Amino acid sequence: MKFSLPDLLLEPVVRAGLLEDLGRAGDLTTDSIVSPEAQASAVLRSREHGVVAGLDLVRLSFHLTDRAIDVVFEAQDGDEVSPGQVVARIKGPARGVLTGERVGLNLLSHLSGIASATSAIAKTISGTRAKLCCTRKTLPGLRALQKYAVRVGGGSNHRFGLDDAVLIKDNHIVIAGGIGAAIGHVRETVGHLVKVEIEVDTLLQLEEVLQVGGVDAVLLDNMKPEVLREAVRMIGGRILAEASGGITPETAPEIAATGVDMISVGWLTHSVRALDFGLDFSV
Amino acid sequence: MKFSLPDLLLEPVVRAGLLEDLGRAGDLTTDSIVSPEAQASAVLRSREHGVVAGLDLVRLSFHLTDRAIDVVFEAQDGDEVSPGQVVARIKGPARGVLTGERVGLNLLSHLSGIASATSAIAKTISGTRAKLCCTRKTLPGLRALQKYAVRVGGGSNHRFGLDDAVLIKDNHIVIAGGIGAAIGHVRETVGHLVKVEIEVDTLLQLEEVLQVGGVDAVLLDNMKPEVLREAVRMIGGRILAEASGGITPETAPEIAATGVDMISVGWLTHSVRALDFGLDFSV
Amino acid sequence: MKFSLPDLLLEPVVRAGLLEDLGRAGDLTTDSIVSPEAQASAVLRSREHGVVAGLDLVRLSFHLTDRAIDVVFEAQDGDEVSPGQVVARIKGPARGVLTGERVGLNLLSHLSGIASATSAIAKTISGTRAKLCCTRKTLPGLRALQKYAVRVGGGSNHRFGLDDAVLIKDNHIVIAGGIGAAIGHVRETVGHLVKVEIEVDTLLQLEEVLQVGGVDAVLLDNMKPEVLREAVRMIGGRILAEASGGITPETAPEIAATGVDMISVGWLTHSVRALDFGLDFSV
Amino acid sequence: MKFSLPDLLLEPVVRAGLLEDLGRAGDLTTDSIVSPEAQASAVLRSREHGVVAGLDLVRLSFHLTDRAIDVVFEAQDGDEVSPGQVVARIKGPARGVLTGERVGLNLLSHLSGIASATSAIAKTISGTRAKLCCTRKTLPGLRALQKYAVRVGGGSNHRFGLDDAVLIKDNHIVIAGGIGAAIGHVRETVGHLVKVEIEVDTLLQLEEVLQVGGVDAVLLDNMKPEVLREAVRMIGGRILAEASGGITPETAPEIAATGVDMISVGWLTHSVRALDFGLDFSV
Amino acid sequence: MKFSLPDLLLEPVVRAGLLEDLGRAGDLTTDSIVSPEAQASAVLRSREHGVVAGLDLVRLSFHLTDRAIDVVFEAQDGDEVSPGQVVARIKGPARGVLTGERVGLNLLSHLSGIASATSAIAKTISGTRAKLCCTRKTLPGLRALQKYAVRVGGGSNHRFGLDDAVLIKDNHIVIAGGIGAAIGHVRETVGHLVKVEIEVDTLLQLEEVLQVGGVDAVLLDNMKPEVLREAVRMIGGRILAEASGGITPETAPEIAATGVDMISVGWLTHSVRALDFGLDFSV
Amino acid sequence: MKFSLPDLLLEPVVRAGLLEDLGRAGDLTTDSIVSPEAQASAVLRSREHGVVAGLDLVRLSFHLTDRAIDVVFEAQDGDEVSPGQVVARIKGPARGVLTGERVGLNLLSHLSGIASATSAIAKTISGTRAKLCCTRKTLPGLRALQKYAVRVGGGSNHRFGLDDAVLIKDNHIVIAGGIGAAIGHVRETVGHLVKVEIEVDTLLQLEEVLQVGGVDAVLLDNMKPEVLREAVRMIGGRILAEASGGITPETAPEIAATGVDMISVGWLTHSVRALDFGLDFSV
Repeated sequence: MKFSLPDLLLEPVVRAGLLEDLGRAGDLTTDSIVSPEAQASAVLRSREHGVVAGLDLVRLSFHLTDRAIDVVFEAQDGDEVSPGQVVARIKGPARGVLTGERVGLNLLSHLSGIASATSAIAKTISGTRAKLCCTRKTLPGLRALQKYAVRVGGGSNHRFGLDDAVLIKDNHIVIAGGIGAAIGHVRETVGHLVKVEIEVDTLLQLEEVLQVGGVDAVLLDNMKPEVLREAVRMIGGRILAEASGGITPETAPEIAATGVDMISVGWLTHSVRALDFGLDFSV
Repeated sequence: MKFSLPDLLLEPVVRAGLLEDLGRAGDLTTDSIVSPEAQASAVLRSREHGVVAGLDLVRLSFHLTDRAIDVVFEAQDGDEVSPGQVVARIKGPARGVLTGERVGLNLLSHLSGIASATSAIAKTISGTRAKLCCTRKTLPGLRALQKYAVRVGGGSNHRFGLDDAVLIKDNHIVIAGGIGAAIGHVRETVGHLVKVEIEVDTLLQLEEVLQVGGVDAVLLDNMKPEVLREAVRMIGGRILAEASGGITPETAPEIAATGVDMISVGWLTHSVRALDFGLDFSV
Repeated sequence: MKFSLPDLLLEPVVRAGLLEDLGRAGDLTTDSIVSPEAQASAVLRSREHGVVAGLDLVRLSFHLTDRAIDVVFEAQDGDEVSPGQVVARIKGPARGVLTGERVGLNLLSHLSGIASATSAIAKTISGTRAKLCCTRKTLPGLRALQKYAVRVGGGSNHRFGLDDAVLIKDNHIVIAGGIGAAIGHVRETVGHLVKVEIEVDTLLQLEEVLQVGGVDAVLLDNMKPEVLREAVRMIGGRILAEASGGITPETAPEIAATGVDMISVGWLTHSVRALDFGLDFSV
Repeated sequence: MKFSLPDLLLEPVVRAGLLEDLGRAGDLTTDSIVSPEAQASAVLRSREHGVVAGLDLVRLSFHLTDRAIDVVFEAQDGDEVSPGQVVARIKGPARGVLTGERVGLNLLSHLSGIASATSAIAKTISGTRAKLCCTRKTLPGLRALQKYAVRVGGGSNHRFGLDDAVLIKDNHIVIAGGIGAAIGHVRETVGHLVKVEIEVDTLLQLEEVLQVGGVDAVLLDNMKPEVLREAVRMIGGRILAEASGGITPETAPEIAATGVDMISVGWLTHSVRALDFGLDFSV
Repeated sequence: MKFSLPDLLLEPVVRAGLLEDLGRAGDLTTDSIVSPEAQASAVLRSREHGVVAGLDLVRLSFHLTDRAIDVVFEAQDGDEVSPGQVVARIKGPARGVLTGERVGLNLLSHLSGIASATSAIAKTISGTRAKLCCTRKTLPGLRALQKYAVRVGGGSNHRFGLDDAVLIKDNHIVIAGGIGAAIGHVRETVGHLVKVEIEVDTLLQLEEVLQVGGVDAVLLDNMKPEVLREAVRMIGGRILAEASGGITPETAPEIAATGVDMISVGWLTHSVRALDFGLDFSV
Repeated sequence: MKFSLPDLLLEPVVRAGLLEDLGRAGDLTTDSIVSPEAQASAVLRSREHGVVAGLDLVRLSFHLTDRAIDVVFEAQDGDEVSPGQVVARIKGPARGVLTGERVGLNLLSHLSGIASATSAIAKTISGTRAKLCCTRKTLPGLRALQKYAVRVGGGSNHRFGLDDAVLIKDNHIVIAGGIGAAIGHVRETVGHLVKVEIEVDTLLQLEEVLQVGGVDAVLLDNMKPEVLREAVRMIGGRILAEASGGITPETAPEIAATGVDMISVGWLTHSVRALDFGLDFSV
C-alpha cells in the first residue's frame, strides 16, 4: 500500500504554516536579493537514517508558494533512507524555492521523526503479536498528520478523537459507580460501529470487566510484564489487550513478549526527535 | 516580568485543538457515562522537574469547553516545578473537566518541555555573554507559542518569520553574486526598523562582511570553538555574533565560552521532549 | 441521559446561519422600526406533535445576536411535545429577539423533524431487536447535528464519516478482486478501534463473508424480508446484521421482524419534514 | 438562460462537506483497498422523474477530491430527467471517484428535490399570473444553494436575508404602534434600491396599507381563497400581492386562481424530499 | 433612530485587525514595560469638527483585547463633535488599553471621516429633494462598515453588492443587444423584491428606457446640470432619477438643484480623509 | 527590483472582496443578461497621472472569478502612468469580466492612490537624506497591502505591527517611571533582531535618551524645523532620527531639509485619494 492523505486535509496545515512564516511582508531577504526571473535547482536529501513521512507536504509547500515549481520525488512515504540519500529534486523560480523551503522541511522532519521512531520500535517487537500504537497526546492542529506518520512507520492508530471510539478511564468508572454501570451506560448509547475499550489498573478490575463483557478491548495501565502476562492469560484472546503507561523503546520488547495485542506509546507523537533533512542548491 | 501572550493569539489554537478532539459527535465516553449535573474537582500536578509554560492554554481549554469550570493557578509560567507539585486546581461540571483535559495538557506539556530544555541549557551558559536562541524550525501553527516557551525558559527569540528581519544565507549570496551585492540589495529595500543578519561559513567571508558593513549581526555557521573565538576577536563587538549549527546541550558551554553573543539551537522547538503533567480527580 | 452536543460544535453553525441572514446591513426592518431600548417577551411553542431536538441552537441563536436575551426552557431535547405546548420563553431587547428568531427556529424545526420521524418509526419496531439507524446521506455542514437528532429521536448512528469505520461496498469488492481480498487489505491497515462492515447483495456473498470472517457487521442491501430472515439465520448472531435499501416507515416493521440488528434509513436525514414551531410575541 | 452560481460561492460548501466526511484519517475503506493507480469509470443516473439542480456541486466534489477526475455532463441544471437517465459520466483515479461521490450526491439530491418540487407546483399554477416563491425557512449554510434550486425549478426568490428587502411583520407593526408608523420609519431609513413589503392578516389592515402607501408588496397571511380574491380586487394591481401561510401543493392551484402575484411556500426549502440519484461503476 | 450594526458583523473585522497588529509575539513594547497589574485611565477625544461613526468598534477593540477594560461613551454614532470633545472614557488594565488602542482608533477615524464628509455634502443639498448616496467603490472587507458610516452621516445606501439589486450598465446593454432586451431578460429572472436600475448616458437612451418601462430607477451618468434637468422633466416622477459621475462636494448643490432624487458619490468611500481622534492617558 | 507580494497573502483579501460583492445570489444583472458563452475584451486604463500599485490584485480578481479569463499587463507595479495609458488587457468569458471587475479596481485604485501620493512627496524630498515612511494608521485587513503600496511609491515602511519592532511612546515612559527604566525593561526582554525606537517630545528628553543609549532610532514628535535641526545635530548620526506628527506634503520638504533620516506620514494610508482607473469594453 502506498501511504497518503488527501490534499484536502494537508493544504490547510501547509497554508497556515506558510502564512505564519510570510507574516505581513513576505520574505524580505529573498525579495530584496533575488529577481523574479531567477531560476534555481535544489536537491532534498536526508541527513540521517530513518523512515520518510510527509513528502506531500513538501510538494504542497513549494506549490502553494509558486505553482511553477517542479517537484520530483525519488522516494516515497514509508521508504527507509540513509544519510545523503536524495528524496526529491526541486526546480523552478528561485524566489519560491527559497521562500517555500522551511515550512515543507519543518513538517517533513517532524513526521519523518515520528515514522522513524515508530519503525525502530516496531522492529524490536516484530516477532511478537503486538502492534505499536499511538495515543491522543498529539499537538493541536497536527493530529491527523502525526497519526499518519505513525502508520507510515509501521505503527497502528489508537482512536483519533473523543468521538470515534469509547475509552472508559478510571475517572469514568468512579463517576459511573463501577465498571458494570460504566459499560452499561456506554452500550445503551453508542452506535453499532463504535468500539469500546476500558482501562484497568489491576487484575481484579480486569476480572470484573471480563465478567461484565460488552467491550472490545482492555487497556492494561502501568502493569509490570509478569502482571501483563497473567492478564493476557485471563483474557484468553476474547478481547484485545493493550499495554500502556511509561513504555519506552527499551522496555517495549519485554512488554511485547507478554502476549498483548497493542503497545501504546505517547512519546511517538509528543516527544519525538525530528529527522534531519537538507535542501542543497545548485543555483 | 510575568510572561503571557494575549488570549486573542491563544484561543484559535485551543479552539482548533478542541474541535479536532471533539470531531463530529463530541466525547462519546463522557457523555454516555457522566450526567450534566455531576461536578468534579481535579488537581493538575507536574510529574517532573522543569519549567512551566502554557498555563493560559490550560485555562482556555477548560473555559472553551465549559465556562462554568473554575481554574485556579498555584504556579505561573516561568516557575520551576518539582515532581508532584500542584500547578492548578480545577473545579466544575465533570463533563467539561473530563472533555477539556487533554488539549490543555498536550499544549502545556509541549511548551513546558521547550521551556525546561531552554532553561537547562541557559543555566550551563549563564556565566558567559551568550544568550540561548531559537530558530524558524518550528511546527506549523505553533510558532508563536513555541517561541513564547523559549522566552519563558530564559532564552531569546530569533526572528519570527521571513518578514520581521533579514537573514542572508549562502544561497542568497550566491544568487546575488557576492556578499557586497547581497547586503547592498537588502539595504536599498528594507525599512529602518528591520535588522539584518548574514550567514558566513568561513573567516574569509566574515572579513568581507566586516569590510562591507551594513549588517547588525553575523551568523557563524558550523564553526569549531577555536574558529568562533577568532571570529569574535575579528568582530570586536561591532556587530552581534551568533553561533549556529548542530549545537547540543553538551557542546553549548564550550561554544558559549568563545565569546559569541547568541547560540541558536533548532531542536529547542523541533525535537524537544514534553514535560509530564497529570490531572488527578477527586470526583 | 440528557442529550446535548458541546456548544463548541454548535456555535459555528449558528454563527454562520446568522451571518448568512444578516448579510451586509443587518435586519433592515427591525433596525428601522424598533428602538434599541424596546423590550420583548415571546413564547416558543410547538405547533405539532413530535419530539424536540435542537433547543441549544435556539439559545445560541438568541445569545449570539444579543447576550442580554434571556432564554428559559420548559422542555428539553428528547421530550415529546403536543400542539401549543410551550418549549421556551424568551425575554429581552426586542431587536435581538426579532433578529435572532429565524435561524434558531430553522434549526430547531429541521432537527425536531428528524427526531420526530426517527421516534415514530422507532416505536413501530420497538418490539424487535432492531435499532433504527441513519446513513451518510446528510446535508453538508449539518452532519453532526442531523446525527444528533437521530439519537434524540431514539435512533442509533451509523458511521460519522469515511474515517471512523470501514464500510466495504460492492465497488470496493470488485476493485479488490473479491471479498476475501477486500477484507484482508482492510484488516492489515486499520487500527484496533475501527469496526469493519461489509455490504452484500446476495446470500452467496454473505456465505463468503462468514467464511472469510474478520468483519464486525454486514449490510444486507435491498433484500426482501424472507431473504433477510434467512440471512439472519445464517449469521447466527456472530456478527451484526444491518438491513438497508429503500426502507420506508411502512415497510420498517416487517423488516425489523426478520431479526436484523439494525435498519438504516437514509431519508431520516435527507428527506424529512420539518416540525413546525412558532414564536408568539407579547410585546 | 443557463442556471449557475459562481464557483466561489459553491466551493466553500463542497469543501466543508468533504472535510466533514474525510474527518481526521480520510477514506479508510478506499485507501485500504484501492491502489492510487487504479482507474474507474462511473455513470451518474437519475433514479426518478424530476428536475436536476446542483451539477456544478458534483463536479466540484470530484475535482476538490482529485483534480485528475474527468466529469462530463449529459444534462444541465433545469433539465427534466427520467429514471435511468444519465446526467454525468465520471472517469479518473478510482480512489477519488469513490471518496468524492457522497458529498456531491448529497447536494445534488437535495437541490434537485427542491427544484423538482418547485417545478411540480409551478406547473399546476402555470395558467395563472402567480409565481411560486420561497421563504427564509432554509437550512443554515445552504440558503444561497436552496434558493438557487428554487429558481432552477421555475420558482422565484423571496428576499435572501434580513438586509436585502424589508418585510414588516405583525410584531413590527405592534412595536411601531401601527401600520403608518411602521412604514414611515422604514421609508425614512432604507435606500432607494430596497423594496418594502408588509404582512397583513385582514382586509382592514390591507385597506390601511393601501391608504398609507409607500410599499411595493403586501403579504396576505393565512387568508382563504375568497378573502384573497377580495384582497386582489382591492389592491387593483397597484402593488404586488403575495399569498402565504400553510399553502400545500394541493391548495396551490386554488390560491393561484385568486389572482395573487406570488405564492410563497416554506416547505420548498425546509421539508422537501431528496431526488434519488445513483453512481454506477464500471470499474 | 440610534445607528448601530450587530456585533456579529463587527467582531470579525476588529478581531482580524487586532491579530494583524499583534502578529506572532504580541505588543513587544507594552509587554516589556508595563506590568499586568498596572491600571490606566484614558480619554478619547475628537481633534476636529465632524460626525462620529464607529464607536462600537472602539468598544470591541478594547474588549477583545481585555474584557476587563471599561468603556463608557459620552457620544454616540451620528453626533456632531468639536475639537477636544470627549467621546469616550476608557479604564482598566494598562496593557490592554495600550495594546487595543490603535485598531479601534483606525476604524473610528476612517468611518467618522466618511460620516463627516457625507454630512458636509448632505447639508449643502438639504434644501433639495436629492439624497446623497454611496457606490460599490469600497474597500474589500469593509463595505458593510463604510456603507454604515454613510448612513450615519445622513446619506443613503446604494446597493450593497451584485446580488441585492440590478444595475444595468452600458456593457450589459451592448451585450444584450439593446435596452429593451436587457430589461426583458432581467424582468424574467429576478424576484419580486429586487429593484432594477439602468444606466443611461443620453436623453435618447432615457426616452427608450421610459418607453420600455419595467425599471425602478435610472442612473443618469455624467450629465451636465441642464441635461439632468431635462431628464428629470422627462421622467416626471414615474421612476427615481440618480445623478452620477465625477460629482464633487463643490458641484453637488448644482446637481441636486436639478431635481434628481439621488446623487451618488464614489469618493465618500474610496478617497475620504480620516477624522482625527486622540487617546489621552492619565496613567 | 520588481515589486510584488506572494499570492498567498493577496488571495484571501481578493476572495473576501469577491464574496462580499457576490453576496448570496451572485451578479444578478450579469447572470440575467449575459450568456455563459459570451466573450468580452476589455482594456484597463489609468485616468490620471500617478504610480500603479496592485496589478496582481486585478489579476486575482478576474482569475478567482473565472480562471478562463486572460489578463495581460502592459505596466507593472511602480510604473508611472498618464491619463489614458493602458495598464492591462483582459479577455475571456464576458460574465466573469463583468463580475470580477469592481473588486480588482477598488484595490488597484486604493493602492495606486497610496503609491502615487508617496511618490509625489518622495520626489519633493529626494535631494535630502530623509526617507518617507508610513505608520500603523492603516485599515484593518489591508495593512500588508497598504504598506506594500508605500514601498511601490518609493517610501519606506515603519514597523508592521506591535511585534516586529519596539516603539516606546510617552505613555510607556510614564508607566515605566522614566526613559532609562523603559529602555532597560525593553533591552532585557526583546531578541537580538528587534530594533528599538523611542518617542521624545523635547530636546531634554532626547538628551536623556542619548545618554542612556540602547536604542536604534528616535522619533522626534511634533517638533518645529529649527528644533529638529538641533536634534539632528545632537544625535550626530549615532542613531536614526525620525520626524513625525502632522507632516503634510507642503511641509515635508522643509522637515526633510533638517537632516532627519525619516519622515513618517500617517495619511499616506488613512486619508489618501484613490487613483482613477477605468475598464473599457470592446464586447
